[in-house]
Amino acid sequence: MSLKLGGNILVTGSNRGIGLELVKQLAEKTGQDTHIYACCREPEGASAKELRELSTQHAGKITLIKLDTSDEASISAAVQAVSRQIGAGGLNLLINNAAINKPAAPAPLSVTGKKDMMDVYETNVVGPFLLAKVFLQLLQTAAESENDRGGDMSCRRSAIINISTLISSIEKCPETFTAAPLYPYRISKAGLNMLTRCQAENFKGHNILVTAIHPGWVRTDMGGEMAPLNTHDSVLGMLGVMSSLSSKDSGMLVDWEGNRIPW
Amino acid sequence: MSLKLGGNILVTGSNRGIGLELVKQLAEKTGQDTHIYACCREPEGASAKELRELSTQHAGKITLIKLDTSDEASISAAVQAVSRQIGAGGLNLLINNAAINKPAAPAPLSVTGKKDMMDVYETNVVGPFLLAKVFLQLLQTAAESENDRGGDMSCRRSAIINISTLISSIEKCPETFTAAPLYPYRISKAGLNMLTRCQAENFKGHNILVTAIHPGWVRTDMGGEMAPLNTHDSVLGMLGVMSSLSSKDSGMLVDWEGNRIPW
Ligand SMILES: NC(=O)c1ccc[n+]([C@@H]2O[C@H](COP(=O)([O-])OP(=O)(O)OC[C@H]3O[C@@H](n4cnc5c(N)ncnc54)[C@H](OP(=O)(O)O)[C@@H]3O)[C@@H](O)[C@H]2O)c1
Ligand SMILES: NC(=O)c1ccc[n+]([C@@H]2O[C@H](COP(=O)([O-])OP(=O)(O)OC[C@H]3O[C@@H](n4cnc5c(N)ncnc54)[C@H](OP(=O)(O)O)[C@@H]3O)[C@@H](O)[C@H]2O)c1
Repeated sequence: MSLKLGGNILVTGSNRGIGLELVKQLAEKTGQDTHIYACCREPEGASAKELRELSTQHAGKITLIKLDTSDEASISAAVQAVSRQIGAGGLNLLINNAAINKPAAPAPLSVTGKKDMMDVYETNVVGPFLLAKVFLQLLQTAAESENDRGGDMSCRRSAIINISTLISSIEKCPETFTAAPLYPYRISKAGLNMLTRCQAENFKGHNILVTAIHPGWVRTDMGGEMAPLNTHDSVLGMLGVMSSLSSKDSGMLVDWEGNRIPW
Repeated sequence: MSLKLGGNILVTGSNRGIGLELVKQLAEKTGQDTHIYACCREPEGASAKELRELSTQHAGKITLIKLDTSDEASISAAVQAVSRQIGAGGLNLLINNAAINKPAAPAPLSVTGKKDMMDVYETNVVGPFLLAKVFLQLLQTAAESENDRGGDMSCRRSAIINISTLISSIEKCPETFTAAPLYPYRISKAGLNMLTRCQAENFKGHNILVTAIHPGWVRTDMGGEMAPLNTHDSVLGMLGVMSSLSSKDSGMLVDWEGNRIPW
């Protein structure tokens, strides 16, 4: 299967879970014009072993980039490393996947503190906010490239995908709160949705598409063992959805099957 | 005019703007059973001069409480000071009004940084989150008090009002973004809406009502001189709305005239 995705693609938090599977399927299913910047906190460490193996299997197609999205200095260093390598085409697709949930288990309000609130916001919202800022020039370059000029917005041309969640939906909170009473995480992802919609407005003049996607409930360290989806099916669905996104989807929240989720 | 509001009421950020007017009208329009805990950062300072005068005019009805909502130690000290004075009735109404907007002027994305994002979130979301936590016991006490047991939820019985804004609406972002491209503030207030709806779910078993209210665009330091509403009319409207809220409004966002705003 081949996808209407390609060019230069950057994925954050790609050493495990959904991020690792995104890099795997993108490497398998895109053409030779594709280059993937697979970001993680410790590219040399034990936690990136599978990602390094994947990059060896797809020699020349994947570059590992050291990036801690909660650290401004690390963001600066990563954008410099990517810029040096990326060439004239710019960045076609930025996938903000890295995120945390604290306190780790669904915890009562009484044990959720200020640090949990601040840390989760820093990684889940401020990281994506800063990454879009520092990569904006490269995204604009991609949007303006000769090949695509005049066409509609797309993830092949120039896009930001913010990985959100069903439980970011304020509307649906009464249905979902009891099963997942995660104040810091929910609030952060509602914030990420607002970021997505602001960016969609702000960047539409540059033909940069910005969409938030819910991956489904997925068996990962974060999703837990009870989750009904595996990373393979979630990512297969999300890449199909990304392939089909156009300007009408910019500023929206959709799930891995393409269904709209209300704010 | 008298309002269906009263008992023990706490207002944050009450030394100027909408918060000061809330204390003024609450003092004027409620009965002698009402006591107002008027919180501000510097009760002894020049910035609280008007509030001190107001408290003198309504002798015995207003207590000034030192509270910086971005400082956990200050929150602890404030809850202790209120608890010592409040008596058996508990806290009937917590109004989270204090908020900031950074960078101050509608600023381009390029000058909006990590510290702006973190500071605005700390004051506008984490402050209200922590205040609800530390006052939860006193709000429960009020909800359970003999007088009101068995009745519907109301702001007279036990409630949290989070002061939000029209531009917290993710849905309406395409209509409002260009006039107010305030990333940190908008994202924080969308987060405050999620907090509101989580709290409404979480606390409904305790009969604590939780509603977010948009005060309108109001002439204050934050709203600026172009705003069409003065603080008097905004607060008059909001207090009327608060008087009329019941369980069906818990977990909702409404404006100062009582109209629902979509998420
Ligand atoms: N799993 C689900 O059911 C589910 C449902 C809805 C939404 N989501 C969303 O899907 C995305 C991926 O989740 P997942 O289930 O794959 O989670 P996961 O298994 O916990 O993996 C999280 C990834 O994010 C990385 N990360 C965390 N903080 C980081 C930071 N400061 N800098 C760089 N990387 C960081 C982690 O790296 P380290 O190894 O260095 O910690 C890891 O690679 C997240 O946005 C999540 O909110 C997941
Ligand atoms: N004005 C509008 O058009 C408008 C529109 C929509 C929503 N709102 C909302 O309405 C509420 C009141 O706004 P306003 O227009 O009255 O704003 P304002 O004139 O700027 O007043 C803000 C108040 O919040 C206080 N404050 C800020 N940070 C604080 C902290 N860390 N701890 C304690 N107090 C703090 C300020 O105290 P200091 O004097 O110590 O700084 C001041 O009393 C806010 O929630 C705002 O977001 C306003």
